[in-house]
Amino acid sequence: MTNSSQSQRPASSASESSVPTVRVALLGAGNVGAEVARILLTDAVELGERIGARPKLIGIAVRDVDSPRTVTLPLELFTTDADALIDDADVVVELTGGIEPAKTRILRALNAGKPVISGNKALLAQHGEQLHAAAEAAGTSISYEAAVAGAIPIVRPMLDSLSGDKVKRVLGIMNGTTNYILDQMDTTGASFDDALAEAQRLGYAEADPTADVEGHDAASKVAILGGIAFHSSYTFDDVYCRGITGVTAEDVEAARRSGFVIKLLGVAERVTEGEGDQAQEKVNLRVVPTMLPRKHPLAGVHGAFNAVFVEAENAGELMFYGPGAGGAPTASAVMGDLVAALRRSVAGGPGVGPTFHAGLPATGMDGVKTSFALTLLCPDRTGVLAEISSVFAEHGVSISTMQQRDLPEDPAHPGQGQAELRFVTHRARNADLVRTVEAIRQMDVVLDMRGLIRVENDN
Amino acid sequence: MTNSSQSQRPASSASESSVPTVRVALLGAGNVGAEVARILLTDAVELGERIGARPKLIGIAVRDVDSPRTVTLPLELFTTDADALIDDADVVVELTGGIEPAKTRILRALNAGKPVISGNKALLAQHGEQLHAAAEAAGTSISYEAAVAGAIPIVRPMLDSLSGDKVKRVLGIMNGTTNYILDQMDTTGASFDDALAEAQRLGYAEADPTADVEGHDAASKVAILGGIAFHSSYTFDDVYCRGITGVTAEDVEAARRSGFVIKLLGVAERVTEGEGDQAQEKVNLRVVPTMLPRKHPLAGVHGAFNAVFVEAENAGELMFYGPGAGGAPTASAVMGDLVAALRRSVAGGPGVGPTFHAGLPATGMDGVKTSFALTLLCPDRTGVLAEISSVFAEHGVSISTMQQRDLPEDPAHPGQGQAELRFVTHRARNADLVRTVEAIRQMDVVLDMRGLIRVENDN
Repeated sequence: MTNSSQSQRPASSASESSVPTVRVALLGAGNVGAEVARILLTDAVELGERIGARPKLIGIAVRDVDSPRTVTLPLELFTTDADALIDDADVVVELTGGIEPAKTRILRALNAGKPVISGNKALLAQHGEQLHAAAEAAGTSISYEAAVAGAIPIVRPMLDSLSGDKVKRVLGIMNGTTNYILDQMDTTGASFDDALAEAQRLGYAEADPTADVEGHDAASKVAILGGIAFHSSYTFDDVYCRGITGVTAEDVEAARRSGFVIKLLGVAERVTEGEGDQAQEKVNLRVVPTMLPRKHPLAGVHGAFNAVFVEAENAGELMFYGPGAGGAPTASAVMGDLVAALRRSVAGGPGVGPTFHAGLPATGMDGVKTSFALTLLCPDRTGVLAEISSVFAEHGVSISTMQQRDLPEDPAHPGQGQAELRFVTHRARNADLVRTVEAIRQMDVVLDMRGLIRVENDN
Repeated sequence: MTNSSQSQRPASSASESSVPTVRVALLGAGNVGAEVARILLTDAVELGERIGARPKLIGIAVRDVDSPRTVTLPLELFTTDADALIDDADVVVELTGGIEPAKTRILRALNAGKPVISGNKALLAQHGEQLHAAAEAAGTSISYEAAVAGAIPIVRPMLDSLSGDKVKRVLGIMNGTTNYILDQMDTTGASFDDALAEAQRLGYAEADPTADVEGHDAASKVAILGGIAFHSSYTFDDVYCRGITGVTAEDVEAARRSGFVIKLLGVAERVTEGEGDQAQEKVNLRVVPTMLPRKHPLAGVHGAFNAVFVEAENAGELMFYGPGAGGAPTASAVMGDLVAALRRSVAGGPGVGPTFHAGLPATGMDGVKTSFALTLLCPDRTGVLAEISSVFAEHGVSISTMQQRDLPEDPAHPGQGQAELRFVTHRARNADLVRTVEAIRQMDVVLDMRGLIRVENDN
């Protein structure tokens, strides 16, 4: 591969025959694939200078050659024979999505020692370990910057720049659709349904928004990024996942009144379970709607932008911010992986992937320390707050703040005033918080419970 | 180096003899060096798992073995014989600073094919090209994430993640001292002198703050990062540099009133000079106090934090944020480079550095398009604004906004009222802006000119 112009294949033109070329196969011509093809065709000379060999797009495998495309590409590049294309290439870029046939095709390339670039988060969050093992066995690499947070360089910085540090926690806004919806709700007071409709109108949300709004898309990214951060291998099923369909305009407004904003956060964090000799390090992976203080750097991430906030033992707090989706931005991430992989190949030497040596087990929510906000509707009479406070105390959960708001009296029932009590707890074990909430929900003085949401705070 | 336990050197203990080791030489035991030593000694086993060989700190070269240290390190590691230490090592970490003897020592290591990690921005901004050439000739690498923006991963993302994109502009808050001072002035209304004194009291500024407040430190970083971003080689002398000593509390307050904040920005941007066939791409490198709209992501970077904002053709707008200085954060950047370089060495294959193939010439300020804010003190009478506006127009500079503020009349001179006119221009060639400002300064109706500062705006 160092100099494929020395191979039996003739170079396609006289001007290209003087420089070595590397043969690139592209699988998929969707939004991102079409942009990658455009960049490869337009910038081949400049990219060749950077790589040390000129990348040559030899073909684009698609299901249907005659499908309409958003970007005009030479028709002769299209083929339905992905296997032949892979076998003919030096490097393979997989941008088809889905588990099969993507997985079989990627393994075909890796087993032949060809570097693979992929943006397939679902596949990586399910079979990442197998793909990495295949790459390592063949002395090549699989790279997937585009699979996590679109254009934002986060996979590579995590792999390389933070490789000498100990990551404590990763918090990310990793889905642009849900961030757009929550940001709309926050800035305009819109309901979830209205904000979703607006997102669909603008093309930020798909007709079937389930994968986004239920947090599944973010969960795949958390599994991938958490694995790299903690040198362990996780899958989608290791991620506790709650979407934003239950977040109401009232929740958003209540958060705003307390100086918070609600974001759908993907979190991967180190958790110690047990004590003394029994203490064991585990990793909690979750996607949950979360209240963030407005001064937190992630609180300022608006619209469909993404950002990943990393807390590391030595580096401290880092944030990576940028577009989380879109054809050209995601193509930039793919191209970065491609150029980096090709530079390595041209220079010689095997690929280097993440290590999963730590094997920290994924853990459920019980041991995670977090805090909750919740709003209770109660009769407006003395003793109610004392009664509720004692239930918190019984479960070992302490209250950080309480705000009471007297509601206007119902004229039909004079003398029976109601009050809204809004609590934010200190950090406590999630299991204790859940038990506290259940006990409070059963209390006679609690007429209604609303706005139950996790809080990331410094308390 | 793949397995130095197979070399003639005996491993230092029985437990270590079973895994390959790599021998690390450290030059310098200052703030950052001491933290790197501590991490290497504490985390060797974990780092070994990541690298595939255990890093062994074989010595620390210092000028004076008996100097007091902030971190307690084994005395037997210290030596004054840097050359012998380098010759005995597999990899060299240079954290001494200054041009010599650092340069000679780094070349000694590179020429012997040993990877070098350095945090020496002054050296890299002066002799970077020579050091890269030496590394490439010997098939090894020099890495320096720590030289730019402390703990923030920016060199490697720029080198690898953005290697398939075309960078248009890099804007960075790359000096924590000046950002702390400007942030204090903005949030408390303090004068420059008071904010500097506070920064010195808190250890954010040195007793002699020249290198920071005059922008020299940021200029070195701009030269280094601009070179990587534009695949060209620049030195400190290519950077137009203005510090913040002339920024007054009034400037900060005026900016605040218009919805702006003043930051010391390091900028590297692509500039096209000439037109048509004569058009030539160049790169302008500058460090200048700049007004930023409050909604710009860099405007929210407070205290001693750093951030780098990148505009790329496909990726769009990215931001990298984190601590720009400090022993442990900077050590994290050094360790990331070290682990990445060692992983490559252990896996086999040569190092890969930046390419400088583009050779875009650095250019002065004349052709740069920017806008200016300036405040004029004028007699409060009709016709003044028209007179001044015509001077802007004569020089081809158009006005974006004008705010007039009538000043209270001086009781001693009734009838001679004065007004403050605050202009922000649209983007124009810097040379035209400078000529406009000079012409306005000469006008009879202009009693005083203040708060002249560049603006980054979307207009």
